Amino acid sequence: MSLRIIATGGTFDKHYDPLTGKLDFRDSVLPAALRRARIAQQGEHGYVFEPLLALDSLDMQDEHRQHVLQACQRAPEDQIVIVHGTDTMRDTAAVLGAAALHKTIVLTGAMVPYLIDDSDAFFNLGFACACVRLARPGVYIAMNGQLFDWDNVQKNREQGCFETLR
Amino acid sequence: MSLRIIATGGTFDKHYDPLTGKLDFRDSVLPAALRRARIAQQGEHGYVFEPLLALDSLDMQDEHRQHVLQACQRAPEDQIVIVHGTDTMRDTAAVLGAAALHKTIVLTGAMVPYLIDDSDAFFNLGFACACVRLARPGVYIAMNGQLFDWDNVQKNREQGCFETLR
Amino acid sequence: MSLRIIATGGTFDKHYDPLTGKLDFRDSVLPAALRRARIAQQGEHGYVFEPLLALDSLDMQDEHRQHVLQACQRAPEDQIVIVHGTDTMRDTAAVLGAAALHKTIVLTGAMVPYLIDDSDAFFNLGFACACVRLARPGVYIAMNGQLFDWDNVQKNREQGCFETLR
Amino acid sequence: MSLRIIATGGTFDKHYDPLTGKLDFRDSVLPAALRRARIAQQGEHGYVFEPLLALDSLDMQDEHRQHVLQACQRAPEDQIVIVHGTDTMRDTAAVLGAAALHKTIVLTGAMVPYLIDDSDAFFNLGFACACVRLARPGVYIAMNGQLFDWDNVQKNREQGCFETLR
Repeated sequence: MSLRIIATGGTFDKHYDPLTGKLDFRDSVLPAALRRARIAQQGEHGYVFEPLLALDSLDMQDEHRQHVLQACQRAPEDQIVIVHGTDTMRDTAAVLGAAALHKTIVLTGAMVPYLIDDSDAFFNLGFACACVRLARPGVYIAMNGQLFDWDNVQKNREQGCFETLR
Repeated sequence: MSLRIIATGGTFDKHYDPLTGKLDFRDSVLPAALRRARIAQQGEHGYVFEPLLALDSLDMQDEHRQHVLQACQRAPEDQIVIVHGTDTMRDTAAVLGAAALHKTIVLTGAMVPYLIDDSDAFFNLGFACACVRLARPGVYIAMNGQLFDWDNVQKNREQGCFETLR
Repeated sequence: MSLRIIATGGTFDKHYDPLTGKLDFRDSVLPAALRRARIAQQGEHGYVFEPLLALDSLDMQDEHRQHVLQACQRAPEDQIVIVHGTDTMRDTAAVLGAAALHKTIVLTGAMVPYLIDDSDAFFNLGFACACVRLARPGVYIAMNGQLFDWDNVQKNREQGCFETLR
Repeated sequence: MSLRIIATGGTFDKHYDPLTGKLDFRDSVLPAALRRARIAQQGEHGYVFEPLLALDSLDMQDEHRQHVLQACQRAPEDQIVIVHGTDTMRDTAAVLGAAALHKTIVLTGAMVPYLIDDSDAFFNLGFACACVRLARPGVYIAMNGQLFDWDNVQKNREQGCFETLR
């Protein structure tokens, strides 16, 4: 069964705009990243890419989380990776977790954008793609080389990493 | 329990030597890659790095494979990632698989060196680190976004990817 | 005679801060960039690096420009490259140009930070280092593969490039 | 007047071939590198790119050097940058120097390929593009942040850098 990879924006996917000097969104880096990963692009072990949103996760509202939920519901795939900003990744995971979809859904992101030196993004993408293949149905966050249950994770903003609640 | 990551060389870890114009081995890129991945460096979710060999996998002999087996046997960890050249990754996996160690051992590598543009190495490392956490005890090869059993995998040299035997 | 390279900050030298999600300043990238360039580090063809300021050029005030002028005056070298933000590069060049120092001073910078994918920074640094060796005494701006006189240049903010006034 | 940039291959332009594990030639990296440099692509300050050869400079024979000379002779431009392998850069420079073309011709290259981490290529390209604009007619080698006359330069193979003969 194919894997679905949904882009929603977040640090992972930010580009530098030379005219404004700010980081913002253009076309997602994910299609290029997935080719670089040398994953099969079709067939049983292939993937489907869906560019759903392009938002800083601090700008993500309830309606956006409903869009993400609907995308997961309508997807024919049972294994879904969602690339998401880290600041509210947990909130989106909670909406998906409460919906109890009987799919394996893994949210991941990055502390440093894919296009910036020393980014963790490509590692995290690989980590998430393996988790979604191997974990039982449920909603998870994959960051810092760990897989967290959606209801036992928080971002530690002082240290810039994810940790369990208890 | 910590994860052990063993370097044996291979394409993943090749450096360019400006004096000879050839690709060879220096200090492993893995410590820098693992810091970049923002994995915990100690504790339950941390890792131990072991630079065991630095060989092109075409140069790897039976004695080298025995070194790798011994490293897995003496490791206190039950979860081991081995970074290995792709050409004989399957042969080393077969030695480890035959030994039936009751550990989860995942071999990975890269089609393009970590230090060269458009490398798959960092994705593969993330993929392998998740597989070793989630897969049942056994010996596996993690390449091209797939997890292969050690006795059902081969490298397709024309296409530059791994595939099942049947 | 050695070349002096003075860092003042600017886009060239911005780092991504994973805790704030913003671009700011840490240690200059220039020492690493100059080693990578394989320039002699000492002797007649070597360089001296001076980390003077670390400012966005929009934050640069008259007093900062006086610091830059004083650094040029007190430098024993007659050939000076200044890495500077692009937005007010021309203003600093005007202060230096009015001082008529009888040195060759070349200001350069970048439209994309050195540490971000597809950056022009390293090319510009090479271009500026050649200009300062070959141009007559005076004050110049080196950007977009062109060498501009300090009193005949402006930044075209719509197109993100430098051009002559007339 | 435009600048002509001629590719002949060399370390600067080598790609990694994942099927053979060797460095070889594909389409030149120069068009992408020049866009990244944000040089004007047309007009008085623009450039013309000519992919002439794609050879390791150790494989370059007399006939190839004659091709390079003819390309310089037939070019309408008076300012020419040649990207060349470092091992025989001096030999090609000698052929061009002896021809006394009344043009400014600057040969450059790289100790590490453009597509490999920590490459000097992009700096050297910037350095060469400035030299060809500012130097008097003649044939030069631009490497290691220095501009050498064609008849007073050699590659120091032990140290991996260029130096004067005397």
